[in-house]
Amino acid sequence: MKGKVLQLLNNADDYISGEEISNKLGVSRTAIWKVMNQLRDKGYEIESVTRKGYRLLSSPDILNEAEIKYDLKSKLIGKKVITFDSIDSTNKYGKKIALEGEEEGTVIISEEQKAGKGRRGRNWVSPPREGIWMSIILRPNTAPENASMITLVAGLAVCKAIREITSLEAMIKWPNDIVINGKKICGLLTEMNSEIDFINFVIVGIGINVNISKFPSELKEIATSLLLEGNGPYNRKIIVKRTIELFEDYYNTYLKTEDLTNIIDEYNDYCININRKVQVISKKENILGTVKNVTKKGELIVTNSNGDDMIVTSGEVSVRGLYGYV
Amino acid sequence: MKGKVLQLLNNADDYISGEEISNKLGVSRTAIWKVMNQLRDKGYEIESVTRKGYRLLSSPDILNEAEIKYDLKSKLIGKKVITFDSIDSTNKYGKKIALEGEEEGTVIISEEQKAGKGRRGRNWVSPPREGIWMSIILRPNTAPENASMITLVAGLAVCKAIREITSLEAMIKWPNDIVINGKKICGLLTEMNSEIDFINFVIVGIGINVNISKFPSELKEIATSLLLEGNGPYNRKIIVKRTIELFEDYYNTYLKTEDLTNIIDEYNDYCININRKVQVISKKENILGTVKNVTKKGELIVTNSNGDDMIVTSGEVSVRGLYGYV
Repeated sequence: MKGKVLQLLNNADDYISGEEISNKLGVSRTAIWKVMNQLRDKGYEIESVTRKGYRLLSSPDILNEAEIKYDLKSKLIGKKVITFDSIDSTNKYGKKIALEGEEEGTVIISEEQKAGKGRRGRNWVSPPREGIWMSIILRPNTAPENASMITLVAGLAVCKAIREITSLEAMIKWPNDIVINGKKICGLLTEMNSEIDFINFVIVGIGINVNISKFPSELKEIATSLLLEGNGPYNRKIIVKRTIELFEDYYNTYLKTEDLTNIIDEYNDYCININRKVQVISKKENILGTVKNVTKKGELIVTNSNGDDMIVTSGEVSVRGLYGYV
Repeated sequence: MKGKVLQLLNNADDYISGEEISNKLGVSRTAIWKVMNQLRDKGYEIESVTRKGYRLLSSPDILNEAEIKYDLKSKLIGKKVITFDSIDSTNKYGKKIALEGEEEGTVIISEEQKAGKGRRGRNWVSPPREGIWMSIILRPNTAPENASMITLVAGLAVCKAIREITSLEAMIKWPNDIVINGKKICGLLTEMNSEIDFINFVIVGIGINVNISKFPSELKEIATSLLLEGNGPYNRKIIVKRTIELFEDYYNTYLKTEDLTNIIDEYNDYCININRKVQVISKKENILGTVKNVTKKGELIVTNSNGDDMIVTSGEVSVRGLYGYV
């Protein structure tokens, strides 16, 4: 009910009368009046003028379905948005509902994660209302070996959304981080459920440190937030929406060729690893080299000390920068 | 309780006294006597002789944990066996408990599947007590792109187990069927849950048509059973145990090199596709060719009409025999 009233307020160019709302939703004007007060309690500024009706002046930075879907330009991604005040992990919830048949495009967002996860089960700090903790369910019609490129697609979308909204120089650290001034601002966790030659579903987890003002001491050197780097606080809603829209565009482009052909130039422009020294760490050996570029298949090309090019896939190695986190 | 008594009976070289059983299990001799009668009701032939005790003469073909684990030579696979009289799908159950943390090696078996699944959600007929419907949970320490080879490892194990026990000429139809006389006797369904470069878990589903005496008309031409092809009925327990033991051996061999280096010769010996004409069906085109061999990475090498070799991965194409199902 709150969501529907909010949608009407958002869609109205000017005032909308209590009568119109009560007709559209089939409830009494007293019920509408109660909902308005509930919304005010949640931080919405709603003006009410006799004979004119209600008008929304400002919205708090709350991530609910109505707020995210309002004027969202995407078609598939975000067609359904499931939001939580608190959850253990949005990726875990996504896996659960995807197993039960949840459709492609559904977005899960929580104001807080109690047990947010990074790669390989590492912890991911996700304090309430200070970041964007979301997961997207995908069912791409491509072979499982092409799924790892979706992390790069998502990285590009987040990087560009941050740049557009904050003007900060966000860069992609291949394959699954976004950094600003050498510190991590966003991590991506892509998980797949597949048969040998068929993808059942992919979950893309996106964690963006938006308005976090303080990190625990063990993270201070490697993690940062948009607030700490720029002129925040930033409106998370706007970042969520722009990320979803850009992700849908890049994802569709990727699906057409089933690789990164049409977006790899832009990716390489934003990739911080290019021309940097890296250590390629595999089970067998550690090799020093310089990053040349990322290929349209999403692999990293690293030139070793003999001048030979190596192809590095994220499935084979870890890549560590030699100078600090980046 | 029935399981524990059965274990003691199975482990006894000769008679075992009611007193010994009641001491070992800490229950009364009257309770033991009741359990013996319950076991007899289930088809176990148990002799009881005054002053000597009980002796197991024969077991019915029931797939329960005690029966499967008795004298099982494997270490990891089958360390835990979960059995059901009926379930929707053993793979589905396996995925569920693996998500919750179930350990590597756990085997799930059901006497019947109500909604057994083949590849891409196709139905898999799994009538009660007439076949082996099982799933194995694995957590291999290898990259996701190596997981598809596990289907080939399982195929080799099933093929060899059938050959040893029935002397029938089972052959592997790459990548995931076992056939006898040109008809399907076993299907494999490998499902994976992974991060971009890390396998959370793999479920290997194995369906073997053991004592099925009649197939629905739409399957008659393409499916068969050990009973219809050989001198059955066959004891399913023995096939389950041998399959588990062989699978563990081949799986460990595969893990050592993270490919099929040490088992590919044996695989090619049993692979029915070799030297046969096939149609390679991809999204882009259909190509006729002749199968040369399977590589140590699990790919099919197909020579086209120009004499050029193509590498076919199961992720890219379907392979159809030109002459009937095989």
